[in-house]
Amino acid sequence: MRVIFNEEMKAVADDLDRMAQDVRKAINGAGDALMNADIDKAQAVIDGDIEIDALESSILDQCVRLLAKQNPVATDLRVVVSTLRLASTFERMGDLARHIAEAARRAYPQNALPEESREIFTQMVAFLCNTADRIVDMLADRDTKIAENIILDDDKLDQLHHQTFELVLSDQWNGTKQQLIDVILIGRFLERLGDHAVSAARRVVYIVSGFDPSKDPGRDEDTPVVDL
Amino acid sequence: MRVIFNEEMKAVADDLDRMAQDVRKAINGAGDALMNADIDKAQAVIDGDIEIDALESSILDQCVRLLAKQNPVATDLRVVVSTLRLASTFERMGDLARHIAEAARRAYPQNALPEESREIFTQMVAFLCNTADRIVDMLADRDTKIAENIILDDDKLDQLHHQTFELVLSDQWNGTKQQLIDVILIGRFLERLGDHAVSAARRVVYIVSGFDPSKDPGRDEDTPVVDL
Repeated sequence: MRVIFNEEMKAVADDLDRMAQDVRKAINGAGDALMNADIDKAQAVIDGDIEIDALESSILDQCVRLLAKQNPVATDLRVVVSTLRLASTFERMGDLARHIAEAARRAYPQNALPEESREIFTQMVAFLCNTADRIVDMLADRDTKIAENIILDDDKLDQLHHQTFELVLSDQWNGTKQQLIDVILIGRFLERLGDHAVSAARRVVYIVSGFDPSKDPGRDEDTPVVDL
Repeated sequence: MRVIFNEEMKAVADDLDRMAQDVRKAINGAGDALMNADIDKAQAVIDGDIEIDALESSILDQCVRLLAKQNPVATDLRVVVSTLRLASTFERMGDLARHIAEAARRAYPQNALPEESREIFTQMVAFLCNTADRIVDMLADRDTKIAENIILDDDKLDQLHHQTFELVLSDQWNGTKQQLIDVILIGRFLERLGDHAVSAARRVVYIVSGFDPSKDPGRDEDTPVVDL
């Protein structure tokens, strides 16, 4: 029984790793599509989201089968339950990357973002590409040190997100209404990607320690409708 | 064993019902706060979100305990897994209601929404209050007919959401940049509430039928950055 459990658990863990890698690819692709008005990368992210969705569905099925047949307890059970929840977090991250790619595709051949906002978004995208790398490593090694750093670093992304609001409300802003909509929504999608990365990190801490550092992993604590 | 399972399952089902009722209250309160600049209702929604978060956490613990001790299979297992996932959906709906309440509180004593947008938002809020009622009923009776209607009706909300973009891009729009931000973000929060209602409906269908009508319950299919 134990051998089968470990084999089946290995298969679902491999799928979860693959999902994290696909999400990393989607975030990188969406960032390129957005910053360079790259239509091919945008389309690849949009098309690739179906594979991420299919992986979530497959992981759900595998976890339910594992729970039914193997009755895992203690750490094994936490792994299965957290795998379910991580898959759902990654699925949502894929959606958000897709939304960013769709915004880039819509604006093509123009860039969705006006010149004055590019510096902030370059930083947000770089931050998230780095976070995506760390998620892949964290998951492969169940590394709670990386998880803690992801949780702690999220403030930097929130600060950058805050700057997008300051920018559009300042006299520096010269964009159209459509560009203002894009800056607000794309900023929101990027900030939500960061929130989901934090959720993922918390779920890895829960697997290893049995302790959920948040007790409310989905909560985003920012005030998205800012008062400036 | 079976008797204990049913008793413990009843307790967690009661908590899930309570969560759905709390979410309904939050949506109603956020709608009132938004449309009537009602600061007391806004504050009640913001404060009340902690209870919703605590219920999610408690449901997670109860489900993990049930899985460990009772090894449910077939429908019982689907109920436990779906309960976990429904709790996470409701937690997120509570966050979104809180964000709307925070926007209303920030704008107080003004209304966050300019006059020309009130008609659309009145309809969106009414739609979601009705959806929240249906979620409570659907859950109490595991009624797949209600679930199917929730899934089918979501298009109406998406159409209203689309109208918010049309409005701000039209000559009719006289709002400030801050009001444009609020319309875009609050519109997004309301539309996401609808998406989560659809996820909840799909999860109830899965409990009853073992069939997931979407195979990707978290996906939102709209194009949030619209091309007009």
